[in-house]
Amino acid sequence: MKAYRRKLDVANGRVDLSHGAGGRAMGQLIEGIFHKAFDNDWLRAGNDQSAFSVPGGRMVMTTDGYVVSPLFFPGGNIGTLAVHGTINDIAMAGAVPLYLSASFIIEEGFPFAYLERIAQSMGAASREAGVPIITGDTKVVERGKADGVFISTAGVGMVPDGLDLRSDAARPGDAVIISGSIGDHGVAVMSKRENLEFDTDIVSDSAALHGLVADMVAAGGAHIRLMRDPTRGGIAATLNEIASQSRVGFRIDEDKIPLKPEVAAACEFLGLDPLNVANEGKLVAVVAPEGADAVLATMRAHPLGSEAALVGHVVADDNCFVQMTTSCGGRIVDWLSGEQLPRIC
Amino acid sequence: MKAYRRKLDVANGRVDLSHGAGGRAMGQLIEGIFHKAFDNDWLRAGNDQSAFSVPGGRMVMTTDGYVVSPLFFPGGNIGTLAVHGTINDIAMAGAVPLYLSASFIIEEGFPFAYLERIAQSMGAASREAGVPIITGDTKVVERGKADGVFISTAGVGMVPDGLDLRSDAARPGDAVIISGSIGDHGVAVMSKRENLEFDTDIVSDSAALHGLVADMVAAGGAHIRLMRDPTRGGIAATLNEIASQSRVGFRIDEDKIPLKPEVAAACEFLGLDPLNVANEGKLVAVVAPEGADAVLATMRAHPLGSEAALVGHVVADDNCFVQMTTSCGGRIVDWLSGEQLPRIC
Ligand SMILES: Nc1ncnc2c1ncn2[C@@H]1O[C@H](COP(=O)(O)OP(=O)(O)OP(=O)(O)O)[C@@H](O)[C@H]1O
Ligand SMILES: Nc1ncnc2c1ncn2[C@@H]1O[C@H](COP(=O)(O)OP(=O)(O)OP(=O)(O)O)[C@@H](O)[C@H]1O
Ligand SMILES: [Mg+2]
Ligand SMILES: [Mg+2]
Ligand SMILES: [Mg+2]
Ligand SMILES: [Mg+2]
Ligand SMILES: [Mg+2]
Ligand SMILES: [Mg+2]
Repeated sequence: MKAYRRKLDVANGRVDLSHGAGGRAMGQLIEGIFHKAFDNDWLRAGNDQSAFSVPGGRMVMTTDGYVVSPLFFPGGNIGTLAVHGTINDIAMAGAVPLYLSASFIIEEGFPFAYLERIAQSMGAASREAGVPIITGDTKVVERGKADGVFISTAGVGMVPDGLDLRSDAARPGDAVIISGSIGDHGVAVMSKRENLEFDTDIVSDSAALHGLVADMVAAGGAHIRLMRDPTRGGIAATLNEIASQSRVGFRIDEDKIPLKPEVAAACEFLGLDPLNVANEGKLVAVVAPEGADAVLATMRAHPLGSEAALVGHVVADDNCFVQMTTSCGGRIVDWLSGEQLPRIC
Repeated sequence: MKAYRRKLDVANGRVDLSHGAGGRAMGQLIEGIFHKAFDNDWLRAGNDQSAFSVPGGRMVMTTDGYVVSPLFFPGGNIGTLAVHGTINDIAMAGAVPLYLSASFIIEEGFPFAYLERIAQSMGAASREAGVPIITGDTKVVERGKADGVFISTAGVGMVPDGLDLRSDAARPGDAVIISGSIGDHGVAVMSKRENLEFDTDIVSDSAALHGLVADMVAAGGAHIRLMRDPTRGGIAATLNEIASQSRVGFRIDEDKIPLKPEVAAACEFLGLDPLNVANEGKLVAVVAPEGADAVLATMRAHPLGSEAALVGHVVADDNCFVQMTTSCGGRIVDWLSGEQLPRIC
C-alpha cells in the first residue's frame, strides 16, 4: 500500500480503530512504523503472503490475527475464519497451502464450552481443507484485558513451479474477475453485532479458496497476473491496493458486480457501500486478456466460483484511480475512510 | 504434555490464569480441547515446533503469542521476546530459523511512539539474528478490549539433514545440560510489574539461541537427544514435560544449577521457586552420555553458553518424577501449580 495523504505523527499520535480497518490509515501505519522497522524486500513487495526459496522450490508464508465480534455469526465463527482466511492468503499466491499454526490469546473466565466449539470448528475446517494445524500456543490474560478470545494463525504453502503472482503485475487491458457476490461476510457479522442486530438470512461466505485456485492455475496459470481476497475494506480496498502497487487504474462496471439483494438492502440500512464490506470466501483475479475466458469458465465450473463475473478492466492511469460505471453515470471508488467496520474479521 | 490429574469440565468450566501459566492446567486445556479438535500426529508429538517434509528436506514451523506485562522491562520488551522466543522454538529442533511472521492486535489509543519502539526493537532483533520478518498483520480493537498490544509471531526453519530431535528421545543415563543461569527473565519482568516493583539489577536473558544451537549441532549433533527452551513454568515444567513424554525420570543436583544470587534473593522475596520462573534465552539439552563432554565444552565456548552446566541425568522411572538433590537431602520438583506468574511472556 502506497501513497497516503496525511503524515503519521509518530511522536504524538495514537492508534485508532481506522488503523485496523483495511483502509488508508492502516496502510499508513504499516508503512510508517512496521515496514520501516522491519525493513526488507519481502514486506515491501506488499503481497498477502511472502514467498521465499527453499532447496526444493518456492514457498510462501502468511499470518492474520482474528478479533471478530461477535465470536459466532451466521455461517461461521472466529475459528473457521482463522483457518479459511490464512489458507486464502496462501492461495492468493497460487500456492498449495500445507500447514497452519494457531496462537490463542484467551481472556480469563472464557467458557471452555465456547473454546471447544471454536476449536472443533477449526479442526473441521482444517480437515475439510486438508491443511492441518500442526503447532499452537495458548496464553491467558486477566479478565477485562482481552475480549473472549483472539486467534492468530500463520500458514505455509508451496508455489507451483513457474508461477509468480505479484502485486505489481496488473497491466492495462487485463480483465478483472470476481469469484462471486460481495459483502456477505460483513453483513452477516454486523447482523449479530450488539446494538445493531437486524433480521437477515445472509450467512458469511467464509470458505477456503485453494481448491478454486488450483483449478484456475491449472486452466490459466500463465495468464493470471495476481489474485487477492477482498477481506477488510472490501473490493474497494483491494482494487485500490492493486492499482497503487501496479501503478495502473481500474474501470469496473457496477452492474456486473454480483451482489445479493438482501446484502444490498442491509448495506443501505447500515449506511455502508457494499464495495467496502469484507468478504471471507471471495477472490479478485487480474488476468491477461487472452486468458480471461478460460479462467472465468473454470471458475464458474467450481462450486465456490459459480457466480464468478468479469467486472471490468485495468486501464492506464497515473492517478491509480478505481473508476466505476454506474446506472447514473460513474464515480471514483475510494478506500473506506475511517472506522466504519471494526472487528469484522 | 501428558498425564494430568483432574478432568477438564468442558461443559461448565472456564479458562483461568493457570491455563496460560505453562503448568499442568495448561497442558490439560491443550490436550482436552485443542489437540482433540485439531487431531493430528504433528501436534501429538508435543514438540516446541512441528516438523514436516518438503521436496528439498525437512522444515519446522512454530508459533507463540506474547502478552507480557509490562510491555517494556529490563533487557527487552514484548517485541524482542516475540522475535527471540519464536526463533528459539525453531532452534530447539536443531533447525536453522529462516523467516518470521508477526501478527499485531492493538488496543485503540495505544501510542504510536510505543508501537514504533516495539517495532524498531523487533527489527533490530530480527536483523541481529539474521531472521527477517517477512509478513504481518495489524488488527485494532476498542479501548478496554485488549491491553496495549499483543503480538503473535510464527516462524519456519530448515532442519539439517539427518537430525531428528524429539520429545520422547530421552534415555536413562543421558546427561542434562543447562546453558546458563535460571530465572533471570521472570524476575526482570516481575521487578517492573505494577504493585510489585522492587529494586534489582537483574535484566532479562532474552536472546536468540540459534547460533549456540548451530555450534552444538556441529560439535555433537548425533548425540543430542532433544532440546527445550525453559520458558513459562521454568526448568521445572520443561523437565517434567520431557519426563512424561519420554517416560523417564530425572535426577538433578541443585548445587549445579546456575542461579544468580540476586535472582535467588528476588525469588525468595516473591515467594517463588526459581525452578518455576521463566527464561527467554536459555536451553536445556538432553545429551547421550558419550557426547556430553563435547557438547558442554562447545556451549561454554559460546557467549550465550559460557555458564553452561551439566546438572543431572535421566533415570529410569515409571512415575516420571523429577528428583533433585539439595543441600538438605532431596525433593521432587513438580510443575508450577496455579497462576503464580501470569503474563510473563
Ligand atoms: N492452542 C493450541 N493448540 C494446539 N496446540 C497447542 C496449543 N497451545 C500449545 N500447543 C502445543 O503444546 C505444546 C506446548 O506448547 P507451549 O506453548 O508450552 O510450548 P513453548 O512455545 O515451547 O512454550 P512457551 O509458549 O512458554 O514459549 C506445543 O507442542 C504446542 O504446539
Ligand atoms: N504489522 C505488520 N508488520 C509488517 N507487515 C504488515 C503488518 N500488517 C500488515 N502487514 C503487511 O501489509 C500487507 C497488507 O496486509 P493485510 O493484513 O491488509 O492483508 P490481508 O491479510 O490480505 O488482509 P486481511 O488481514 O484483511 O485478511 C501485507 O503485505 C502484510 O504482510
Ligand atoms: Mg488476510
Ligand atoms: Mg508456546
Ligand atoms: Mg488477503
Ligand atoms: Mg515458546
Ligand atoms: Mg492480514
Ligand atoms: Mg519452547
